[in-house]
Amino acid sequence: MPDLSALLSPRSIAVVGAAPDVSILRGRTLKVLLRHPYIGKIYPVSRSHREVQGLAAYASVDQIPAPVDLAVLIIPADQVPQELERCGSAGVRAAVILTSGFAEQRGDQGMPLQRRLREIAARYDMAVCGPNAEGFVNAAANLCATFSPAVDNMEIPLLPAWRRSGHVAVVAQSGGMGFAFFDRGRPKELPFSYIVTTGNEACLAAFDVVDYLLDEGRSEVFLMFLEDIKHADSFRRAADKALRAGKPIIVAKVGGSAAGRRAAASHTGALAGQHEIYRAMFRQYGIIEADTLDQMVDIAAAFSFYRTRLPAGKRVGIGTGSGGGGGWMADACAAEGLEVPELDRPTRALIDPHLPAYGTSQNPVDGTAQAIRAIGYGELARLIALSDQVDAVAMVITARNPEALEREKAHLQSISESGHKPILMWTYTLPAAASVRILSETGYPLFTDMRHCAGALAALCAYRTLRERYLCARDTSTAYDRARAARIRQRLVQPVLCEYQVAPLLADYGIPTMESQLASSAAEAARCAVSLGAPVALKVQSPDITHKTDAGAVALRVWGDEAVQRHYDEILQHARRHSPAARIDGVLVQRMAGAGLEVIVGVRRDPLFGPMMMLGMGGVGVEIEHDLALAPA
Amino acid sequence: MPDLSALLSPRSIAVVGAAPDVSILRGRTLKVLLRHPYIGKIYPVSRSHREVQGLAAYASVDQIPAPVDLAVLIIPADQVPQELERCGSAGVRAAVILTSGFAEQRGDQGMPLQRRLREIAARYDMAVCGPNAEGFVNAAANLCATFSPAVDNMEIPLLPAWRRSGHVAVVAQSGGMGFAFFDRGRPKELPFSYIVTTGNEACLAAFDVVDYLLDEGRSEVFLMFLEDIKHADSFRRAADKALRAGKPIIVAKVGGSAAGRRAAASHTGALAGQHEIYRAMFRQYGIIEADTLDQMVDIAAAFSFYRTRLPAGKRVGIGTGSGGGGGWMADACAAEGLEVPELDRPTRALIDPHLPAYGTSQNPVDGTAQAIRAIGYGELARLIALSDQVDAVAMVITARNPEALEREKAHLQSISESGHKPILMWTYTLPAAASVRILSETGYPLFTDMRHCAGALAALCAYRTLRERYLCARDTSTAYDRARAARIRQRLVQPVLCEYQVAPLLADYGIPTMESQLASSAAEAARCAVSLGAPVALKVQSPDITHKTDAGAVALRVWGDEAVQRHYDEILQHARRHSPAARIDGVLVQRMAGAGLEVIVGVRRDPLFGPMMMLGMGGVGVEIEHDLALAPA
Repeated sequence: MPDLSALLSPRSIAVVGAAPDVSILRGRTLKVLLRHPYIGKIYPVSRSHREVQGLAAYASVDQIPAPVDLAVLIIPADQVPQELERCGSAGVRAAVILTSGFAEQRGDQGMPLQRRLREIAARYDMAVCGPNAEGFVNAAANLCATFSPAVDNMEIPLLPAWRRSGHVAVVAQSGGMGFAFFDRGRPKELPFSYIVTTGNEACLAAFDVVDYLLDEGRSEVFLMFLEDIKHADSFRRAADKALRAGKPIIVAKVGGSAAGRRAAASHTGALAGQHEIYRAMFRQYGIIEADTLDQMVDIAAAFSFYRTRLPAGKRVGIGTGSGGGGGWMADACAAEGLEVPELDRPTRALIDPHLPAYGTSQNPVDGTAQAIRAIGYGELARLIALSDQVDAVAMVITARNPEALEREKAHLQSISESGHKPILMWTYTLPAAASVRILSETGYPLFTDMRHCAGALAALCAYRTLRERYLCARDTSTAYDRARAARIRQRLVQPVLCEYQVAPLLADYGIPTMESQLASSAAEAARCAVSLGAPVALKVQSPDITHKTDAGAVALRVWGDEAVQRHYDEILQHARRHSPAARIDGVLVQRMAGAGLEVIVGVRRDPLFGPMMMLGMGGVGVEIEHDLALAPA
Repeated sequence: MPDLSALLSPRSIAVVGAAPDVSILRGRTLKVLLRHPYIGKIYPVSRSHREVQGLAAYASVDQIPAPVDLAVLIIPADQVPQELERCGSAGVRAAVILTSGFAEQRGDQGMPLQRRLREIAARYDMAVCGPNAEGFVNAAANLCATFSPAVDNMEIPLLPAWRRSGHVAVVAQSGGMGFAFFDRGRPKELPFSYIVTTGNEACLAAFDVVDYLLDEGRSEVFLMFLEDIKHADSFRRAADKALRAGKPIIVAKVGGSAAGRRAAASHTGALAGQHEIYRAMFRQYGIIEADTLDQMVDIAAAFSFYRTRLPAGKRVGIGTGSGGGGGWMADACAAEGLEVPELDRPTRALIDPHLPAYGTSQNPVDGTAQAIRAIGYGELARLIALSDQVDAVAMVITARNPEALEREKAHLQSISESGHKPILMWTYTLPAAASVRILSETGYPLFTDMRHCAGALAALCAYRTLRERYLCARDTSTAYDRARAARIRQRLVQPVLCEYQVAPLLADYGIPTMESQLASSAAEAARCAVSLGAPVALKVQSPDITHKTDAGAVALRVWGDEAVQRHYDEILQHARRHSPAARIDGVLVQRMAGAGLEVIVGVRRDPLFGPMMMLGMGGVGVEIEHDLALAPA
């Protein structure tokens, strides 16, 4: 793995393709870099200009008279390989390729071009991001190697200076979506450490970046937008490292629908794969899947404040000044799988003196506007949090007017510093920017969407549970048994095994099956039925007939000599009519199973992630309800 | 029903309890009324002041020398009945009671007080809103009879003057939530006609207001926040009228959870009832249920523009400048039950010339930033809408920068005027206010939440389907059959009927059951089994044993003389051990049913809405999956 610090924290940058005209991307990219107070060196490289935007320009990257850590390439696609080669031989250690027209391109020209990039990067051990990327931002370094308009607003600092922890890194295959997280998180005062867009991922993939950022240490929460995962190993390594460190990854994965998969293929040349497999892998590593930009930003905000103070359980205390909002929030919590228990008597006795007669302390605690005016949202939240009936508090507030919050600011701060339970706030009115700031500075995430608030709380709970389970998981794999493996291999004689061949194989693993015998004549079947005890099931055994019921080659609950013989003959007749050329090994006579729960258990090998266990409701349920769970084996 | 025009469009208003101090609600309410340019007369009524906020004040409402349409009451709860009585006798035609402390109050004082209000209002035929309400806004009249801070911002007009149609009325039991809709819809340029908050609904209930507003005609979409429905009849009348008029109702109903129901009871004294019954009633009348303020406002925005141009089907064409956003939107559409089919060749041939080689016209149509710069979002949407493969278009745009939209404004306008298919826009960046304005003026709703965009589109489709079904529904009820009713009544001899007693009753309605006979001895059971043909089921018949399987008093698939007799004896033994005092009518011997789908069908009488049909998966599924559908009978 090349050194990603040259890419994301370079001391010097060459902009290859820099232009004076800032209305085109080649000019704009340099302009964006220059207007932010990045302290490293910036060298424009231009074939046609000696000076670009006030800086001396170089005709070629190898003419720059000082070491260059990072090259930003924004030149026509067909010139990129040659230029990357030049960078490599000039000792440039990293590159961002903003140019489009590689694997995502129609026709067959893009893919070979992209392969050449990979080959060159490997040869020079360069950290190469892209192509078809929108660049990146290192907020602490004021480094914006991108043409994204998301960083144009200079009125807000890239990084809120007062936030010391809880920084969020965005790693996205899509530039538009990657910077959209940034765009939406900033008015919520979310502190972003990095925005990295990886585009087609010819060389570095999204989880390589996450892996590096986990080691680098300045990011505590990860927001990812993925169209595919390129390498299962780097995914597993980064996901494991993140979960052990308690640094949550929140992900949107495109490709749940056929149209989404089509779009991914066309957008970054990604093969989106089966969504249920991704979902199983995410669950395994406590990765939180979400649906929209704002929802993801809101979950990130909750973790940004509370990742080291996760709720011990699912019980929520709700405090509100609006009775309607409190009830609605209770429903939202229930919909997210949380519990809203009635509060205990001692806690209610602490709260009641502050309430008018038309308020209530039951939970939701409706302080009404009157109690909120008297004691403030913070104090009401503190009182609710005292109850050992609740693990977290959700406050329903109005943050339209910052003055009331300003008055209780010191108290809010002391509660958040001394409290052990997360307190999340939802405002039903649109919040003033100053309100967002006050709450953020004193240590509270503010949500404008009630469901996101409840959902983020549920995500905090689920993450804690999944992580604890992951950290205590023991290795339950059994030692490799050479003799057993040989026995099994011996029996894997054909691609399809019949039930009579599978049963002894399962028995070898201690998995029992219904008692049964293979019969090759009607008379033998009748004898078998007697020895097994009626009623029995009869099933044709043929490697060429895998759907026996469809062929009419199964009989259930057969009872009595005559009936067994008759069904035996019928089954063979139906099987032959269904598949005249089928090899038929006989008819299995099996003791009829009693009523019970039909379950399907299986294994399949995913091309990316390898063997996956499958467990679900069997019988007719398999197709109708598709109630299956997958997990990596 | 009293005349609601006196309430919502009064020519004169008395503010009873008006005070000079605008920091208290009694002063604030008058101040809010006065600062908006309402053209009617306003009369402060105060016991202690001769002048309030520059207006001459009256000591009592009956001293006002001119007719008063509406009295706004903001005085202590125990004085409200007496004051309402005075209003009634002085000829005041309507009242809003802002005071709290009635049915929602702890203790037993509030409810009788509230009953007195109802009695007085009925006696004078006054239109009375509240108590415990937050008042209302009639935007066209610039009338704000409320203390809500939501109307403080005078920089935005109450009503966007350029919107001629698609007006949205809010009717909410909660003042906080009611005005929160207004608060959140205004930056989206949603034109609100009315905000009415109904509080405890001692007299007028939410659907009474909807009913009036449907007749009044200035509202085309309804947003409702409900904790309960007080009167089934006025609900049915208003819901039917709205659906026939094609004016959708979007509702949030609190009480899906136990805590939500507790909150509703405490907040407005509402009995929230069973949520599944409400859900069934909403479905029946095409009422759209939603989860959050923003989601509801977004659905309202879609209907505000497109209620007369609903999509003919579920097929969506997606256009985008961001490949990542396009794929994500495709997944969102699929998640909402919409389809994103590949576009036809002729449409693609129209689009392809505008795309670079790394774009695609398959659907999602990724124009890339390049095509968007060249032809604009509007033209791309127009081309996609030409395809007969799609019923609606969802555009993925960036509305950060209004200048690009400004350039294509005229074209956007002409497309929306001449087009037949709804075009919805989602911006992944945060939109500039000017962008929202441009799109709204030219006829397009703009969404910031992708799921809300897809969900609103799905709601447009579902509404059309439900409405068409509702309008063509024929009356399938059969005439009342006196003789049959008498027969049935005769058989309803005891609270619990056994299966052998129910079977002939069902047969009377043409519903067949499995052939069966009641046996009262083991030998008789064996004879029955022979005559029915084996195998049989045996079931104890006792009005005192309703859960027969739990009592061990059922045997299935019994076969043969000896077995039938043995099981008969066992069943009686088990039944007697389980319930020694049970009256036992015998054992039902029934032909064993073949494999099939177990279904539960039933009727229950809801205290509010009356008889409801229930249909669902039966067998073990009933309890495990609770897969039931309800509909009003």
